[in-house]
Amino acid sequence: MSGFGPGGSALGSPTTSPDLGPADLVITGATVLRHDEGGGISFAADQIVVIRDGVFEAVLDAVDAGGASVAPPAARETIDARGKVAMPGFINCHTHSPMVMFRGAAEDVPADRWFNDFIWPMEVNLTDDDVELATRLAAAEMIRHGVTTFADHYFNMDRIAAVTDETGLRGVLGSTYFSTDGQAGLEQSLEFATRWRGAAKGRISTALAPHATYTLNDDDLAATARAAQEHDLLVHIHAAEGRSQTVHSRERTGRTPIGVLSDTGLLDGKVLIAHGIGIVPEDLPLLAPAAAEGRVGVGSAPKGYLKLGFDTTPVRLLAAAGVPVGLATDGAASNNTLDVWESMSFMAYVQKATELDTTWMRAEELLDHATTQSAAAVQLAGVVGRIAPGYRADLILVDLSDPRVQPVHDLASTLIYSARSNDIDTTIVDGQVLMRDRRLLTVDVAGVVAELAPRLARLTDRSHGKSIQNYDA
Amino acid sequence: MSGFGPGGSALGSPTTSPDLGPADLVITGATVLRHDEGGGISFAADQIVVIRDGVFEAVLDAVDAGGASVAPPAARETIDARGKVAMPGFINCHTHSPMVMFRGAAEDVPADRWFNDFIWPMEVNLTDDDVELATRLAAAEMIRHGVTTFADHYFNMDRIAAVTDETGLRGVLGSTYFSTDGQAGLEQSLEFATRWRGAAKGRISTALAPHATYTLNDDDLAATARAAQEHDLLVHIHAAEGRSQTVHSRERTGRTPIGVLSDTGLLDGKVLIAHGIGIVPEDLPLLAPAAAEGRVGVGSAPKGYLKLGFDTTPVRLLAAAGVPVGLATDGAASNNTLDVWESMSFMAYVQKATELDTTWMRAEELLDHATTQSAAAVQLAGVVGRIAPGYRADLILVDLSDPRVQPVHDLASTLIYSARSNDIDTTIVDGQVLMRDRRLLTVDVAGVVAELAPRLARLTDRSHGKSIQNYDA
Repeated sequence: MSGFGPGGSALGSPTTSPDLGPADLVITGATVLRHDEGGGISFAADQIVVIRDGVFEAVLDAVDAGGASVAPPAARETIDARGKVAMPGFINCHTHSPMVMFRGAAEDVPADRWFNDFIWPMEVNLTDDDVELATRLAAAEMIRHGVTTFADHYFNMDRIAAVTDETGLRGVLGSTYFSTDGQAGLEQSLEFATRWRGAAKGRISTALAPHATYTLNDDDLAATARAAQEHDLLVHIHAAEGRSQTVHSRERTGRTPIGVLSDTGLLDGKVLIAHGIGIVPEDLPLLAPAAAEGRVGVGSAPKGYLKLGFDTTPVRLLAAAGVPVGLATDGAASNNTLDVWESMSFMAYVQKATELDTTWMRAEELLDHATTQSAAAVQLAGVVGRIAPGYRADLILVDLSDPRVQPVHDLASTLIYSARSNDIDTTIVDGQVLMRDRRLLTVDVAGVVAELAPRLARLTDRSHGKSIQNYDA
Repeated sequence: MSGFGPGGSALGSPTTSPDLGPADLVITGATVLRHDEGGGISFAADQIVVIRDGVFEAVLDAVDAGGASVAPPAARETIDARGKVAMPGFINCHTHSPMVMFRGAAEDVPADRWFNDFIWPMEVNLTDDDVELATRLAAAEMIRHGVTTFADHYFNMDRIAAVTDETGLRGVLGSTYFSTDGQAGLEQSLEFATRWRGAAKGRISTALAPHATYTLNDDDLAATARAAQEHDLLVHIHAAEGRSQTVHSRERTGRTPIGVLSDTGLLDGKVLIAHGIGIVPEDLPLLAPAAAEGRVGVGSAPKGYLKLGFDTTPVRLLAAAGVPVGLATDGAASNNTLDVWESMSFMAYVQKATELDTTWMRAEELLDHATTQSAAAVQLAGVVGRIAPGYRADLILVDLSDPRVQPVHDLASTLIYSARSNDIDTTIVDGQVLMRDRRLLTVDVAGVVAELAPRLARLTDRSHGKSIQNYDA
């Protein structure tokens, strides 16, 4: 089971620093997914990964240029990863993680009924405690399935932030608001964003989270843009969720949803666009300046689009414009899982089918979306998404012993087309092991499930006839 | 984690037979997927499943009509399945299982290059021993992922049959031939089919396996039809693999591929159609008589179709005509896995997207395809596909402890949209436990992988310039 990737030369610069004492964590024997300077992806067998103070200190060949074995540096903990692949942890670029509580509660219905008859009436029932508990379940799922960073867009965000801190995940968190919330909407989102940024030892970054171009008016979007730039904050917003939204937006406002982002000043700052399915060629000049400065990205959740019969994010179009497209799951009420690996594989299938071109997207390109492009989309380029010195130590280990992934002819193809997140046995964030040998170390799943069960009838009650919004995009 | 399905009354008729001595295997505490008389699917909590001589003897409520606990009958082995779902094992209605050896070796290329530049040149390299070894790996994958029956269509079928016997699986096996093989093609396929039928204690049934309507001429198809009817054999054949094949077939022969099956007499016997993507409304009258007599079915592998940018099997059209559509994976060289659960979920997504109707197919309908319709497609209706007295005891246990599947609002939706084959922890065929607590009992995976590794370079060598066929459908 060794030797399933080509050997590679050391990436280890700077090398380890013995004068600093033992490293915090050393991983030996792994085949490491690495990025060359141009961003290209390859695999290097038998690497030594050294982690100190939450950061990758070095990635070293276990055999030096002269053919001699390199001894791993002293460390407080060493993980033997022979036969395993070390990859950057997955980044979920758009989710509503507490919605795991509604997983499977609204299936096989049209999109408008999904919103108006199920989700938005059920969301009326939420308490702070419900959100906290559901986020804990979501955190367990993410850690189990290799997600190390999640960009969340929801209500009761203080509780989500607290669970992010408690469970060891990295979060890019934004508190949702609508124009129906009035001025208070932006105020609370801004208050959350400025209070929590940099919390959880730096693992929490924040965003303003206006719901969508169709649930906020231009004045509120413009106020959001001003606040975001004043406070140097990302804006995370649903836009162009389908081609029909683009058509409706043109009819109602004379502009595409991206045109609305542009007109209201949001594209002058940093923007994370959820879905972007309805982005059209005329939007590209509006996105280009922000793309050139690394200020815009899209989060795409292709499994849910397929399930709902939607079109999908125009990845090829966005690639041509230099807009990074990160992977996402949306909420589990539509996507059913928070499994970003699954999103990666679905992006492959859906893109091939949509473009009627089996040569588009290659396995390595999908791994680029999962790593470099996802990090860029959530404004963490250079921080996470690579196993390389200086990056935060967010890493997963993938065990290739399941017969479903053997033999390995081409490791990238194996990872995209036959492996899945269940093959992950170790999840590390900021150098902290959150899952070891498939055992979660920071969440008691059985306890959370037991606590959630008696709440389900109340959470899914729709007899009150109320709704948090009406979907008419 | 209990109580995720509605309670149900006993299906246990006939009840257990204490005079026969202890049962072979009793499973307690499971929530059982059951079929009512009309074939509708529901779930019954806290059931006792009794297995004797490879057959389900009884399925009993653990609480009787008076509210008293029912003691499980004495058994040589008892499995505590509290918190788990018992489902019929999956049936792979069309595969080429040894092709796992080429998994990931031909990715991101067009379909014609996939055949002509990769698969068919590589298949020139196969030896009997390669096929045997690869089938052992495939068997491990199938058992690990809950497939209990597979309909195989390949070369060196003696070796595949031997591995079926050795590993405990149930197989519907047919030896492939082309018109380029001459008369010997049908002869060897018939010789295999008559020699192996009923082997492996009855777990092996057989089929004639002409490759396709476009690689056999009408005379050879007609000879196949006559031989099949003379020997009461199923014919397993690729037909209407895409809409373009239907167009080409009309151009070349004046008939659709289904028209060819009809004209050559194949629809007068029992036929398993692989793919059937290009089946059109004018084919339905040709299929109807065979459908009414339960003699025809289709095996559909939707993941691979999506990946290759193909259309998909017209399930709705076939449902209207009463033709069962079973689930399949095709070979792992295109589908990358032999995971029929994955095929079930992909059928949901692809059907919703293709029909642009989120209300088509509901979760229960997919479970019907996975059980009743798949069994019918491979001519095992009434034999496998249900957990009910008299059916062969092919069963899987699904563990719902992964946070990805919690909470459970609706068990059918959970199984289709968030659970996956990795949640299976037990696989039983004919009452024999082949996987217990996720440990395989009849295949040494590491040994097989080690033995396969040195063969990969030879297996994927294409420098000889030869090919087993040329694809031009």
